[in-house]
Amino acid sequence: MKFILNHTDARCKARAGVVETDHGAFETPAFMPVGTIGTVKTVSPHELRENGVQIMLSNTYHLYLKPGTDILRQLGGLHRFNGWSGPILTDSGGFQVYSLDDLRKLSEEGVEFRSHWDGSRHLFTPEKVVDIQRAIGSDIMMVLDQCIANPSDYDSAREAHLLTLRWAARSREHFLNTRPYYGHRQFQFGIVQGGVYEDLRIASARALIDMNFEGYAIGGLAVGEDAETRDRVTDLCTDVLPENKPRYLMGVGKPEDILQAIERGVDMFDCVIPTRNARNGQVFTATGRVVIRNARYKDDPRPLDEQCQCYACRHFSRAYIRHMFSVNEVLGLRLATIHNIHFYQKLVREARQAILEDRFGEYKARFLETYHGNNNELSAGEEE
Amino acid sequence: MKFILNHTDARCKARAGVVETDHGAFETPAFMPVGTIGTVKTVSPHELRENGVQIMLSNTYHLYLKPGTDILRQLGGLHRFNGWSGPILTDSGGFQVYSLDDLRKLSEEGVEFRSHWDGSRHLFTPEKVVDIQRAIGSDIMMVLDQCIANPSDYDSAREAHLLTLRWAARSREHFLNTRPYYGHRQFQFGIVQGGVYEDLRIASARALIDMNFEGYAIGGLAVGEDAETRDRVTDLCTDVLPENKPRYLMGVGKPEDILQAIERGVDMFDCVIPTRNARNGQVFTATGRVVIRNARYKDDPRPLDEQCQCYACRHFSRAYIRHMFSVNEVLGLRLATIHNIHFYQKLVREARQAILEDRFGEYKARFLETYHGNNNELSAGEEE
Repeated sequence: MKFILNHTDARCKARAGVVETDHGAFETPAFMPVGTIGTVKTVSPHELRENGVQIMLSNTYHLYLKPGTDILRQLGGLHRFNGWSGPILTDSGGFQVYSLDDLRKLSEEGVEFRSHWDGSRHLFTPEKVVDIQRAIGSDIMMVLDQCIANPSDYDSAREAHLLTLRWAARSREHFLNTRPYYGHRQFQFGIVQGGVYEDLRIASARALIDMNFEGYAIGGLAVGEDAETRDRVTDLCTDVLPENKPRYLMGVGKPEDILQAIERGVDMFDCVIPTRNARNGQVFTATGRVVIRNARYKDDPRPLDEQCQCYACRHFSRAYIRHMFSVNEVLGLRLATIHNIHFYQKLVREARQAILEDRFGEYKARFLETYHGNNNELSAGEEE
Repeated sequence: MKFILNHTDARCKARAGVVETDHGAFETPAFMPVGTIGTVKTVSPHELRENGVQIMLSNTYHLYLKPGTDILRQLGGLHRFNGWSGPILTDSGGFQVYSLDDLRKLSEEGVEFRSHWDGSRHLFTPEKVVDIQRAIGSDIMMVLDQCIANPSDYDSAREAHLLTLRWAARSREHFLNTRPYYGHRQFQFGIVQGGVYEDLRIASARALIDMNFEGYAIGGLAVGEDAETRDRVTDLCTDVLPENKPRYLMGVGKPEDILQAIERGVDMFDCVIPTRNARNGQVFTATGRVVIRNARYKDDPRPLDEQCQCYACRHFSRAYIRHMFSVNEVLGLRLATIHNIHFYQKLVREARQAILEDRFGEYKARFLETYHGNNNELSAGEEE
């Protein structure tokens, strides 16, 4: 995998780059919308492209259960199956499995869990997760890691970090000993763990670097820690990770969190917030978040965001989109989703341009000032 | 309203025409997809256009309750509200009200009912229904009529037909004494009632013709009667209705029913079948209906219909669309809806071309032969 680092902002660690895959290149900083089970909910792959998306994420756990690897193999992999011809990154499934609570059992071998569809038992090992991602045919696959609760004490964090490293070594070996099915190259990212503990994070990053992955993710954040902790851990990870490989902060996040992480040298992001919040009627605008179900919009002829050029904003009023939500019409979910995806893509595109011009700090400050202005309906601390 | 009758098939009553409105013209025979509450479920107005739709239908009852006429007035009418810039026909709300069963009370004045949203009481009179449709701004509005159960005895059918005529006269008078709000012309269709009784149907049609509506609908069919009865009643209505006005058979129907009615001189149709069935996973193809949830499609790489050029068929396999349905992804509903809309538009477009070439009968026979071939999963009598 080729990662071209175009520029690092002269006044901070923010980076502008390009990642090349056999399904085309994507610019960084990049935000990947989440297409859990093959599709980003409510929108088509062509709408992703029209709204600036260059790479999407899909979930290994979900695709493994439905449609399953046999069908993915028969249909020629996820790209041919879901109609998205650009790069795809798949997670390892680990995070979903850990979210199943009582449905899982951890061992040195891997993690056993029960399907949320039918209760059937399955075992994910580091090797099996590589095999599944071979069947999916994702351009970038993630290793299986052990996720821990937040907060976790030092010993638990250390143990999980060490298991994650042993699994990473097995993952890498299996990756190097297997081949892609569909004629395009696949790449593999390691995942830095270690909770909030500096020495563990540094040890984790260094050990993974020795395994020579094509890129590195920072895992175990965006799980409820405060913003200051997240920023500190991000910072110390990107200090250790190599310049010449992309860095991916998993599961982050809100626009403000993404900007903080870009400033700390992160290149890639994914999060369900833009799409999930859209389906709950919460849209992102330059002047903050808008809860479109609110009665105050019932006769508002303005678009969701007067600065936006997305399909929803070019053709529909807040009043109409509110009406769609109030009568449970799918088109409302879809218009809000399109808008939020467009908003996130514009955010990272403008961030990239600012980095290229050595003014990322200024861009971030200006964005946050407008975004947190008086019009924002939701206070900063409010839950999504 | 200008109705241009381009041609009547030399060998049957099938007609090809054009109806001109201030929101553009539509060709007949025309099929109007149903956008109950402003939008055709799951699809955007631009997708309607892309798939050949020239006129859509929306429901007065639903729009009256939500968003209500005040908001429609403030936002400049339905065309500006919902982003569909082509012709819109609205029903009178009568059919929905009659479907409410215990929630309604009929009198000479009108029909009282309770909202299915909140139980609030409302009265629809012929005049009020005109006023609501003025607020909606539909290009073609329908008069309030009395719908009857099927089967109904002669006396009930006669009574309902006579009330419908008295209401039609009040509707027409109120229509002629009021003005459009939004600067475009609106037109009004009367509705022929009379159940399955020839003399009542003829009397109804003649009385309506004297009121000089811009077009005439045949109501009270597609309510469970057999196909032979429907065809017979349609035939005798179109024998009486004037050549120079469009004829609309309300609520019909399946592809085969539409072809039978076109052959009998009907110009316009609406039905929820293509869109509702799509959301239930039933798609229409040249070789019959396909139930896409069926396990046999789980690894089928073919499009829904190999003869179709819609977005769904150009980009997605049966296997993928089945996967979408099996994991409850909205995109599946949407792709099936797009496909069915495209199928219905192609049906009426090809019918029109056949009429222009005096070969409608042949077209119909060939369509039905292929459509009812061995591949059809559903027997002709099966319920949608």
